[in-house]
Amino acid sequence: MIKIEAVVRPERTSTVLEALTAAGVKGYSYWNITGKGQQEGVEVFTGRGGHLSHRVALPKTMIMTVIPEGMKDAVVDAIIGSARTGDEGAIGDGKIFVSNIDDATRVSTGESGAATVA
Amino acid sequence: MIKIEAVVRPERTSTVLEALTAAGVKGYSYWNITGKGQQEGVEVFTGRGGHLSHRVALPKTMIMTVIPEGMKDAVVDAIIGSARTGDEGAIGDGKIFVSNIDDATRVSTGESGAATVA
Amino acid sequence: MIKIEAVVRPERTSTVLEALTAAGVKGYSYWNITGKGQQEGVEVFTGRGGHLSHRVALPKTMIMTVIPEGMKDAVVDAIIGSARTGDEGAIGDGKIFVSNIDDATRVSTGESGAATVA
Repeated sequence: MIKIEAVVRPERTSTVLEALTAAGVKGYSYWNITGKGQQEGVEVFTGRGGHLSHRVALPKTMIMTVIPEGMKDAVVDAIIGSARTGDEGAIGDGKIFVSNIDDATRVSTGESGAATVA
Repeated sequence: MIKIEAVVRPERTSTVLEALTAAGVKGYSYWNITGKGQQEGVEVFTGRGGHLSHRVALPKTMIMTVIPEGMKDAVVDAIIGSARTGDEGAIGDGKIFVSNIDDATRVSTGESGAATVA
Repeated sequence: MIKIEAVVRPERTSTVLEALTAAGVKGYSYWNITGKGQQEGVEVFTGRGGHLSHRVALPKTMIMTVIPEGMKDAVVDAIIGSARTGDEGAIGDGKIFVSNIDDATRVSTGESGAATVA
């Protein structure tokens, strides 16, 4: 089993969740975060010749899902396809992280293992 | 060290945290998320013969704790026992994920390693 | 690639993010959580001779960043130095967890691998 963590634009959340469902994902979690990626801080010039450097951290959504390893490529592609903006994508579209999950247990039944995330 | 991530019903959060403490867990974090598990979308019939398909993503709580590997079974059992609803559990009771943590450091003292989560 | 998850005091968040940037970190996410660490519950004595045991879970911030493994020590030190309070640190200053990330993909370009987090 692997965990997919995707940081996406909040306004893309619904589209990404639909793409995940279309790719066969049955369970996911998501929550509001603040995130900074490649975008650089902007310099804001103030009226008296000074300037302020601003970090550019923006509202984002964290989407997490645990899936069988064999679904990795399909799920990553589904997120890229649904989270990307414009024809060529833009800075701020987000990032996808993949890591290992050793075990999963369904609370209602107590059953464990890969079958619980398939 | 291992990380336990549990998605539970919000109204069960307090009960689960007490069960974790009773099982010997000293530290944990939790936050509000929206989650979808096994529950299927419902079809809502509208007045004019149409229908809307709804995803069923609901408010949940994410509980995260990092513990020594030897506590895994006791902690997973504690979560199952406290998060499950009704006599036989129900869809929507949640999911528990286990993964590996390579290192932990206590900010106040700078000390690292397994002792910081015991 | 490794993931750093740091639980810090909310009022230290901005200072920690600046320290991360100074250490060369280009991307991060953060969100509000509730957390309990070493601090023990306090007993609150009520007017009629009874008492209530309170867990001490407090507002905290979760900061997550994925970095090249070679930056681990610098980043952990940056967090310790910026998140610690008082001359010797205090209980409640937080905790830092390190775990492995197998892959990272930039949504805008679709490129994967260690270069995307450097």
